[in-house]
Amino acid sequence: MNAPTALNHLLPQVNLREVPTALLDALKARFGDQLSTALVVREQHGRDESAFDVPPPSAVVFAQNTQDVSDAVRLAAQYLVPVIPFGVGSSLEGHLLAVQGGISLDVSRMNKVLSINAEDLTVTVQPGVTRKQLNDEIKSTGLFFPIDPGADATIGGMSATRASGTNAVRYGTMRENVLALEVVTASGDIIRTGTRAKKSSAGYDLTRLMVGSEGTLGVITEVTVKLYPLPEAVMAATCSFNSLADAVNTTIQLIQLGVPIARCELLDENTIRMVNAHSKLTLREGAMLLMEFHGSPEGVKEQVQTVQDIAAEFGGAAFEWAETPEERTRLWTARHNAYFAGIQSRPGCKAITTDTCVPISSLADALLDSVTEAQEAGIPFFLVGHVGDGNFHMGYLIDPAIPSERELAEQLNHQLVARALKLGGTCTGEHGVGLHKQGFLVEETGHGAVEMMRTIKRALDPHNILNPGKIFSL
Amino acid sequence: MNAPTALNHLLPQVNLREVPTALLDALKARFGDQLSTALVVREQHGRDESAFDVPPPSAVVFAQNTQDVSDAVRLAAQYLVPVIPFGVGSSLEGHLLAVQGGISLDVSRMNKVLSINAEDLTVTVQPGVTRKQLNDEIKSTGLFFPIDPGADATIGGMSATRASGTNAVRYGTMRENVLALEVVTASGDIIRTGTRAKKSSAGYDLTRLMVGSEGTLGVITEVTVKLYPLPEAVMAATCSFNSLADAVNTTIQLIQLGVPIARCELLDENTIRMVNAHSKLTLREGAMLLMEFHGSPEGVKEQVQTVQDIAAEFGGAAFEWAETPEERTRLWTARHNAYFAGIQSRPGCKAITTDTCVPISSLADALLDSVTEAQEAGIPFFLVGHVGDGNFHMGYLIDPAIPSERELAEQLNHQLVARALKLGGTCTGEHGVGLHKQGFLVEETGHGAVEMMRTIKRALDPHNILNPGKIFSL
Repeated sequence: MNAPTALNHLLPQVNLREVPTALLDALKARFGDQLSTALVVREQHGRDESAFDVPPPSAVVFAQNTQDVSDAVRLAAQYLVPVIPFGVGSSLEGHLLAVQGGISLDVSRMNKVLSINAEDLTVTVQPGVTRKQLNDEIKSTGLFFPIDPGADATIGGMSATRASGTNAVRYGTMRENVLALEVVTASGDIIRTGTRAKKSSAGYDLTRLMVGSEGTLGVITEVTVKLYPLPEAVMAATCSFNSLADAVNTTIQLIQLGVPIARCELLDENTIRMVNAHSKLTLREGAMLLMEFHGSPEGVKEQVQTVQDIAAEFGGAAFEWAETPEERTRLWTARHNAYFAGIQSRPGCKAITTDTCVPISSLADALLDSVTEAQEAGIPFFLVGHVGDGNFHMGYLIDPAIPSERELAEQLNHQLVARALKLGGTCTGEHGVGLHKQGFLVEETGHGAVEMMRTIKRALDPHNILNPGKIFSL
Repeated sequence: MNAPTALNHLLPQVNLREVPTALLDALKARFGDQLSTALVVREQHGRDESAFDVPPPSAVVFAQNTQDVSDAVRLAAQYLVPVIPFGVGSSLEGHLLAVQGGISLDVSRMNKVLSINAEDLTVTVQPGVTRKQLNDEIKSTGLFFPIDPGADATIGGMSATRASGTNAVRYGTMRENVLALEVVTASGDIIRTGTRAKKSSAGYDLTRLMVGSEGTLGVITEVTVKLYPLPEAVMAATCSFNSLADAVNTTIQLIQLGVPIARCELLDENTIRMVNAHSKLTLREGAMLLMEFHGSPEGVKEQVQTVQDIAAEFGGAAFEWAETPEERTRLWTARHNAYFAGIQSRPGCKAITTDTCVPISSLADALLDSVTEAQEAGIPFFLVGHVGDGNFHMGYLIDPAIPSERELAEQLNHQLVARALKLGGTCTGEHGVGLHKQGFLVEETGHGAVEMMRTIKRALDPHNILNPGKIFSL
């Protein structure tokens, strides 16, 4: 008999429920080739970018339309079996893991753009449409969809985790950009939340209750999001600093002045090195802000002037411009791949990713002390930050075979989150709670608020079949 | 015995629950002078700007802090008696009426600004702080709070109804501007939702579930909202058109082009006349856009140029500028008082106010046909619109003593809402559902979504004591 190790409290609680053969037979009868029980398919649907290891789901249903989703949920409900929605598997927090067993409901084939309402600056898509696909398909309208988590995630998954990314400082997150949803409830019913109107006071905000609910309250089958006119002028630049503190303080000041910067990203020297190696770039090795400015030609000029003045006060080097659209794309692709650049820098490693977000005036306190702690601990890490929002990520690069490394990473993460909460911040700016941040959620919001979440969950999903075990235990 | 009149279906369902003397005694013991059972006080708390007539609550508790609210709710819960939160009584939809009896919980004495975090662009206030008071108290910071419903409403009430106003086209509504809340639940517990971080993916979005819940899920006792730097340059102008259609089409085009206009308000000729009379102004009598532009001096110049060009295409007259801050204030005060100007234009009347909001491309269809219908019906009305958002209000000015007038107004409203819903819009852009729009809510969102709202309500308020009978019947 093994004694529990010190690590046990960090691992997800696995508590498999039975998946009766009768359910698998019923799914097979209903879905035919759209159902797979092949191990390789199940394994691919039983993991994500998180560092957890959990048995795969018993089957995968590939839904092609809302009725498929409804029928799959209805059958699962009949047998009280968990259903875990799946997009492209880019979650970082274990959202996709079948910790209570069950079936994976893959919506990646529901990938049609359903209606482009360019004159209203809205588009309605199926949940499996990815953010890059969406922008490709609306290119001719002169509009774009700004939300851009690192991965080419699905719009459904981005809604479910309340995702954001580099453009959020100007355009907001999924919270601000989802107008309406179609959702399949725990009983398999199909409901609509919201309309295409820009604002509404019509009853409870079910749209925003579903956004960020991580698949635990319903399966998203349609999403209407806002679009924005492509800016007349776009300029992107990098600026190097002598220290992280200088880069952070530049950011704080430009946000406090209300500069409508579109992107304001921080990378530390070490991460720049990883990104240069991964993306074959030659960015200057030092703390760096990657910035983008959107607006009219005059407006952009004004923003750039203001930010250059502030940066100069903090010893920032001259801006280096990404002059052409191609150079800009190369720069932002490299930034989006920073996570993978980090992983690549230590072959075989897994990343334990932090995600705190703090009020902007506390960003220096939150970020610099956490970096010092990690350096002193001697753990390899990358550091990227949507610093314009007060949100930054450290990725502790651990060898999954060495328990003490995970323990150390978790300990550093805990210190970092505790600091952020003390400063009025949140444990997760954009990745969600999933399995990994459940303890932090209670620390952040208190037992009363989490109990209210549980009460809502119990009311809307009385048999706890929708992605159970995520956000909170039940 | 009276036969039911044709009007009955339009009146609120009054179903008084008993308020036991034991509760009144317990409240008296706990609250002393903070409790009033005087008829005049109860009557003042038993009505709002809506056109309904309902018996007043049995008592009014004047809460001075969160503990007062918690204790009052706890006592009411013990006796299963309804509690109706009250701010300044400016609701237009009957939110404050004691349709199931109970006590009014007046939070207007909870009117302290608790903490100004200027460097984070946030402020935390008690729910009884009004929007004008808030802006007065933060004046020295160089920041402002933009959300401005017509009345000088409380921040608590504005949160509860998901209010907006003239600035929403640029700054969003309470939905986008409330960061965090303190809430007293149906059992009297005190919870916190959200943090001061700009974004978060930490569990269900309880903040936005409470915003717009009209006092039915909890009593708001603290609100943290976003602030904005006062724009470097502000310019306000009016522009007259030969027809409503021209004014509306100008608006549609400037929104579709993404002009970041701060305010874009429409008034029709008749309403201009009412406003001129009420506010002693001499605005040109014709369909008019009232606009405001915020930004850098250059940015404002660009916006103005673009909008002037568009307006000229639709035959708009030259802009007339409100040159000084005093003139601007006078103009916007007059706009905010348009509702009262309308009421004053027909002594003794009540206004039945519509509140649809549609996707911007449908604004002309929604608005012009509704105006034509009202004109043909021969009912006096005013027309104002936050047209930049696709939201407009008609106020049918009825004599409450003449049932056929109310019937006609309700019929016109029904046609107007049906049209808006068909165009992809909502029955209420900013006033809330209250008593008046419950049927429309079902038409808009469907039985399934309303049933989900009811399920949440039952779970969070099992004895249905928090502002019962509002949003939906239960």
